[in-house]
Amino acid sequence: MRRRAVMLILDGLGDRPIAELGGKTPLEAARTDNFDRLARGGICGIMDPLSAGIRVGTDVGHLALFGYNPLKVYWGRGPIEAAGVDLTLEPGDVAFRCNFATVDEGWKIIDRRAGRIREGAAELARALDGLDVADDVEVIFRAATEHRAVLVLRGGNLSPEVTRTDPGPEGLGAALQWSKPREPNFRLAARTAELLNLFTRRAHDVLTAHPVNIERIGRGLPPANVIITRGAGMHTRMRSLAQRFHISGACVAGESTILGIAKMAGFDTFTGEKMTANLDTDVEEKFRIADEVLSRYDFVVVHLKGPDIASHDHDPRGKMEFIERVDEVLGRCLDGWLGRDSLLTAVTSDHSTPCALGEHSADPVPAIIHGEGVLTDEVTAYGERACARGGLCRLTANGFLLTLFDLMGVSYRFGV
Amino acid sequence: MRRRAVMLILDGLGDRPIAELGGKTPLEAARTDNFDRLARGGICGIMDPLSAGIRVGTDVGHLALFGYNPLKVYWGRGPIEAAGVDLTLEPGDVAFRCNFATVDEGWKIIDRRAGRIREGAAELARALDGLDVADDVEVIFRAATEHRAVLVLRGGNLSPEVTRTDPGPEGLGAALQWSKPREPNFRLAARTAELLNLFTRRAHDVLTAHPVNIERIGRGLPPANVIITRGAGMHTRMRSLAQRFHISGACVAGESTILGIAKMAGFDTFTGEKMTANLDTDVEEKFRIADEVLSRYDFVVVHLKGPDIASHDHDPRGKMEFIERVDEVLGRCLDGWLGRDSLLTAVTSDHSTPCALGEHSADPVPAIIHGEGVLTDEVTAYGERACARGGLCRLTANGFLLTLFDLMGVSYRFGV
Repeated sequence: MRRRAVMLILDGLGDRPIAELGGKTPLEAARTDNFDRLARGGICGIMDPLSAGIRVGTDVGHLALFGYNPLKVYWGRGPIEAAGVDLTLEPGDVAFRCNFATVDEGWKIIDRRAGRIREGAAELARALDGLDVADDVEVIFRAATEHRAVLVLRGGNLSPEVTRTDPGPEGLGAALQWSKPREPNFRLAARTAELLNLFTRRAHDVLTAHPVNIERIGRGLPPANVIITRGAGMHTRMRSLAQRFHISGACVAGESTILGIAKMAGFDTFTGEKMTANLDTDVEEKFRIADEVLSRYDFVVVHLKGPDIASHDHDPRGKMEFIERVDEVLGRCLDGWLGRDSLLTAVTSDHSTPCALGEHSADPVPAIIHGEGVLTDEVTAYGERACARGGLCRLTANGFLLTLFDLMGVSYRFGV
Repeated sequence: MRRRAVMLILDGLGDRPIAELGGKTPLEAARTDNFDRLARGGICGIMDPLSAGIRVGTDVGHLALFGYNPLKVYWGRGPIEAAGVDLTLEPGDVAFRCNFATVDEGWKIIDRRAGRIREGAAELARALDGLDVADDVEVIFRAATEHRAVLVLRGGNLSPEVTRTDPGPEGLGAALQWSKPREPNFRLAARTAELLNLFTRRAHDVLTAHPVNIERIGRGLPPANVIITRGAGMHTRMRSLAQRFHISGACVAGESTILGIAKMAGFDTFTGEKMTANLDTDVEEKFRIADEVLSRYDFVVVHLKGPDIASHDHDPRGKMEFIERVDEVLGRCLDGWLGRDSLLTAVTSDHSTPCALGEHSADPVPAIIHGEGVLTDEVTAYGERACARGGLCRLTANGFLLTLFDLMGVSYRFGV
């Protein structure tokens, strides 16, 4: 018996009590008739992305929710971003997350995002793709969303153990940091850093002379005249989630990291201009697509970044309202979903982001699985505290996904 | 946002239902208004020192509560005792827990503790420190509390894989066991055992002739004429808890094992003659010191051995009364603590010791975290069964500590 499932991921959903909300969390304070309906008819629990007390980033939280053990397969962000732009890495490839940025003549960073360049970025990327840095090393360069891009160095026995050239958000006005090996005696990394620096200089020459930038200067815009890098990583080749469980998967998301992880997992991805990975994302469009592809895939994941954005902004009311909006849009699909035979509905999150902190915490997140076969519990509302009394008790993100898969009838069996 | 925390460890607290207490555990039967107040206003759960069904010793339970993974860093007791007497081990050192004991001419053990010698023990230890056993091996010997001592063999490519010379509590009247390698083909261990046996013989000569012992015999006391050893171990060099999380820590305790682990963790330790690691310990003094140092440290741990002692004695009423005494003394501090900004209060234990068994069991222990940011639950009393319904659900000692640290704002973050 195989069942299908849809899983909603509300990024950064978990929170802590907030005085202004009467000591409730944004999720507890929100009116969520539809999430509550799922909680009432399903099985609930609290979920640690990795294990109790360990904070995770969005990348690690999603790797875990997509069935990977991040302690074993955490590659750095470069390979995830490469997957996001459909670059298939080969063993030995080193991938970097990049920004188009603006530097002055002294390599000082004037704008880390080159005025959030969109138009012309693909053209600039094409000019850098294939740039010559060494006889045995191929340069692959692709534009991603807006000012983001991906660099892959292929061949030549390279290493990801090199420092970033991007001085980071706090480094505005600082100079570009020339890359170095992480330890002085890392020989392969020393060569990789050298090639990365050579790429950076040659790319600067190409970009400075490029018509797209000459036009930008003419229009008073900051030229995208440098590539800054971070998140160097190598891909550990392993079977994707789709291959391991022989399932077809779809992911509806606006954020490149999530789309990259979904592609690594062997899922088809669905995105669009109106999916902004922000509070202004088109929630309706995401649910419309999910609803549409539900009959074609075994497993459909819908990612909503809004709660995390509001949390980083210290905005509990904004978080609450975004949750209510998602609940409302979910409500329009829910009768249809619950009316389908053999469809499981899961709701969870990648990590907590308490609004009071404005950053990720290690608090477990509340989670629900609704559908045929689940051992319903007495939880009647979707909330951090309510779910802690649920029938799933406390489990990890890997455990949660595998539990859902087991209910779908696609789990591993260990032993005879 | 950084918060401070105080953590109370009631050693051996967890228990099982006791008919004489109306089917309650000593903790459930005890009047504990102040622990209950923390439970009511905090988040509760049950905690496995390592994992469900695994019994641990006090050393392993505390290693876990001090953030170490005992499966990775369990060094044997020798290194812990060495830390307890402020001996900093070097890589390759083998450390042993020792007793001053009394043997007859046939190496038969007459008294495993040499009449619980106190006076003169430091003098005897000094006579053994630097004893010659080999050109390439240094002997370091220090007295610890009462009849206890620490031996370190340094240099010469040694191994801790040797058998104990102490025949153990059941071995009274048995002969001292000459040390052997744990496996016949352990070459380094064979040499280590040989050196240990040589040390034992030479130490016997020195001790027999020592004025302290001649005087003891004159006073009809058993001479401390032999050193018996157990708990051989090597120190794995690793960053301390204080270093890993950039915190300052203090530990108030009477037991050398706890003090040793706290020192390994990079904590300052506070102890005194009246802190006996027994039922007669000065509870007031421990809380007085904790209260005093609370403003100078990020994290203050208070250890109380009483519940474990009463449990090993099969004394549920004694255990209950000790718990009530701690609760009462806690009550005098609690208003002050809860009135402080940003102070978290945690209560837990290192393992269960059911009075009916008189030894450690694998039952999880009840645990509380109280303070700003916690998602309070519906638990209203501190007890084994009450806490099992709490919002922390079930977690490990490592998970509990890291959860407390995350609330303090000092957690790891894995991923971007």
